[in-house]
Amino acid sequence: MAENLQSLHDRFNRPVVFDVRVELREARSSLGELLAITDQHQACVSQVNLTGHQPDRQIYSLRLFVRDDAHLETLLAAFKVLNGVTVAEVIDVALESHRGGACEMRSRTPIRSNTDLRIVYTPGVARVCKAIQANPDKARDYTNIANKVAIVTNGTAILGLGDIGPLAGLPVMEGKAAIFWEFAGISAEPVLIDTHDSDEFINIVEKLAVGFGAIQIEDVAAPECFRITRELDEKLPIPVFHDDQHGTATIVLAGLYSAVRKTGRTMGEIRCAISGAGAAGTAVAGLLTEAGIGDVVLCDRAGAIFRGRTEHMNPEKAALARRTNKENIRGSLAEAMAGRNLFIGVSQPNIVSMEMVRSMAKDPIVFALANPVSEISVPDACQAGAAVAADGRMMNNALAYPGLFRGALDAKARSITTAMLMAAAKALAEIVPPGQLMPEMMDPRTHQAVAEATMGAVK
Amino acid sequence: MAENLQSLHDRFNRPVVFDVRVELREARSSLGELLAITDQHQACVSQVNLTGHQPDRQIYSLRLFVRDDAHLETLLAAFKVLNGVTVAEVIDVALESHRGGACEMRSRTPIRSNTDLRIVYTPGVARVCKAIQANPDKARDYTNIANKVAIVTNGTAILGLGDIGPLAGLPVMEGKAAIFWEFAGISAEPVLIDTHDSDEFINIVEKLAVGFGAIQIEDVAAPECFRITRELDEKLPIPVFHDDQHGTATIVLAGLYSAVRKTGRTMGEIRCAISGAGAAGTAVAGLLTEAGIGDVVLCDRAGAIFRGRTEHMNPEKAALARRTNKENIRGSLAEAMAGRNLFIGVSQPNIVSMEMVRSMAKDPIVFALANPVSEISVPDACQAGAAVAADGRMMNNALAYPGLFRGALDAKARSITTAMLMAAAKALAEIVPPGQLMPEMMDPRTHQAVAEATMGAVK
Repeated sequence: MAENLQSLHDRFNRPVVFDVRVELREARSSLGELLAITDQHQACVSQVNLTGHQPDRQIYSLRLFVRDDAHLETLLAAFKVLNGVTVAEVIDVALESHRGGACEMRSRTPIRSNTDLRIVYTPGVARVCKAIQANPDKARDYTNIANKVAIVTNGTAILGLGDIGPLAGLPVMEGKAAIFWEFAGISAEPVLIDTHDSDEFINIVEKLAVGFGAIQIEDVAAPECFRITRELDEKLPIPVFHDDQHGTATIVLAGLYSAVRKTGRTMGEIRCAISGAGAAGTAVAGLLTEAGIGDVVLCDRAGAIFRGRTEHMNPEKAALARRTNKENIRGSLAEAMAGRNLFIGVSQPNIVSMEMVRSMAKDPIVFALANPVSEISVPDACQAGAAVAADGRMMNNALAYPGLFRGALDAKARSITTAMLMAAAKALAEIVPPGQLMPEMMDPRTHQAVAEATMGAVK
Repeated sequence: MAENLQSLHDRFNRPVVFDVRVELREARSSLGELLAITDQHQACVSQVNLTGHQPDRQIYSLRLFVRDDAHLETLLAAFKVLNGVTVAEVIDVALESHRGGACEMRSRTPIRSNTDLRIVYTPGVARVCKAIQANPDKARDYTNIANKVAIVTNGTAILGLGDIGPLAGLPVMEGKAAIFWEFAGISAEPVLIDTHDSDEFINIVEKLAVGFGAIQIEDVAAPECFRITRELDEKLPIPVFHDDQHGTATIVLAGLYSAVRKTGRTMGEIRCAISGAGAAGTAVAGLLTEAGIGDVVLCDRAGAIFRGRTEHMNPEKAALARRTNKENIRGSLAEAMAGRNLFIGVSQPNIVSMEMVRSMAKDPIVFALANPVSEISVPDACQAGAAVAADGRMMNNALAYPGLFRGALDAKARSITTAMLMAAAKALAEIVPPGQLMPEMMDPRTHQAVAEATMGAVK
């Protein structure tokens, strides 16, 4: 069923899933009519279940994949015109899946007697406190701290939705916490910090860090995220990870290792154009350079970033200009892509045309990772000649960060280093099943391989 | 087994529990010798298990309750003198129970397919974020926030251990989180704030509060805890609870309702002396006054707090002097207790003598709640004539706060009010089994009754 749903999922760029309960009071044939209408409206039916039948009616539950709410409304309107059809209930599956939240804090041992209570709490717990007071390292043994990650956000760059605030961003943090638990057995807590002041954000994380084994900075807007991550990393004795930077860079490098193998290239032959000079683009450029690619040029909305550019610059971009773009080319993204054999998009939807892909070197690699809608669709990129094309659904950061944190925590790493990211990327590339670009997300060995490689790279 | 262990627990004031694995290489009779020695040393054996036997030896695991580490060492030394006895392993049960921590964050739904992943995380989660962005109240439905409590500490007054810092206090916060989950199904997260600056503490909690449904201030030293709790309660739209104040006051009032029934008194007849004018004493005095007791006088180390006292005063104590001590008595705790019919200790171990209890009015009520060692032991208080005597093990705050939070969260309370505490105390007193002072901690109905009463008292 899972794979079935996934292929349906892939048919839309960003499907919305609804369960619709319909009552049919006429002959059974009206189910056929319903499905025909669904087809006409280009919605997908992924499941049909008979959930009740009475002498005068039958009740079906249909799981539908539609483009958006308007699409559903049109479809439901068409249902209602049918004789004897009543739409009894419409359930928004994404909302319902998040009802009550995606994660929760539970006890690790049952409390079944007053003795249990006196061990988990006072007076027994005093003994545990004193052991940690005498030797703070014991907190790794006798608290959850060695397995605990803070997922910290100020809500300034939630997904592609922008500065919607920490509360509206909480479902993302909870979703990530659920992923940490499911894929790596890590206890990850959403930490919402309601401030737009980066210094205050840094100070608060510093004061809270005593309670965690690692920090994940999540969905904090660029360029503030750079300084926040850098300063916290310098100040704190525990790893500070920014998924938009570290996670994306790891996944892109893993995908590139996999793609150069497929296309028979070497890393030194790779000449890359990146669209997007924010957190992700900057980190990707840095890691790919470390991994030995031939050249990389970053483009922002003003085009290629080059030494000597004066407009729309900031210190981060000036530093990028010094490290990248060997030929110091100028011009638009289209000009930067021409003749290159790797395009990486971490920017905006639909900004790359098939023409631009055709202008690239022969058999180019196209990673169009903008979420939820990519710079160019995978089918379009392939039709325009891409030898390898992938979007953010195939190259998902959740392949990297659970294992990276598992490895960093278990190795008691004090920082996330380039060596750890490169080791994780290599490990991912090594376990790619034949015919695929990336390893299987649902295979526990994927996350275990990343964890082991990361651990091995901790000094 | 549980009850058995409990009675053993009660035999010591604060037992330490060890599992000791011994190998006996001689005849079976040496087990008898071991137990005889245990008895001689006044340790308790709560369990004996044969865990292995080989031709030349038998391996037993003994669960022992001892006074302290020195007590255990003496006992083990006596074991080792025995012929053919080897102590193979000693396990500290409290430490082992906390190994890996007492709580952890888990996902609420499994992630078994890429479709699950796309619903719990991007792109599906974007829909949830947008729903909350459009209507922040939806966060109560589609995140864990409506069931989430922050257990916040700066580590300045952990149990009776003092300012041992937030990290050494973490086992207490985790233990409390475990209790919240087990007794009330509440997702409670330890939040350690590494600061001694009350203003900074308040500011940080304010900025974090967006992610929680309620705040529990835990083990923050007096008098700072008063201002912290008060200011946060004023500033935040969610309940701010300080267990040392609110929890203790609720439990004492519940115990008092129960005790006045037992002793055939009315609340108006109660004339109370409280030892301890910190967070607990102040809150207890306030709630008991609201509940209509005749008079209360608080004592600190300098004796009774009275109007006109100039030494060892602070604004909190001056306010107390105005509200309490109708006759404005002066003098020591012993003088304050003389002739009164209720003593409440929330202070120091062993500061009340049997003589002081004898000086009270006939059939007095004695609640000696200092943890872990009380102001006077229950047997001593009874021998000195107390009609009702209890210590902190019988009058445990965990009877109150899980239900209080459950009720406050479910009723969407914006604050913890005196009416809620009084309702909770009444509910507790009403379900006390015959012959007991307090209800059963392990009975889920106890916490449910508190929750319902609390909900009913929310305006």
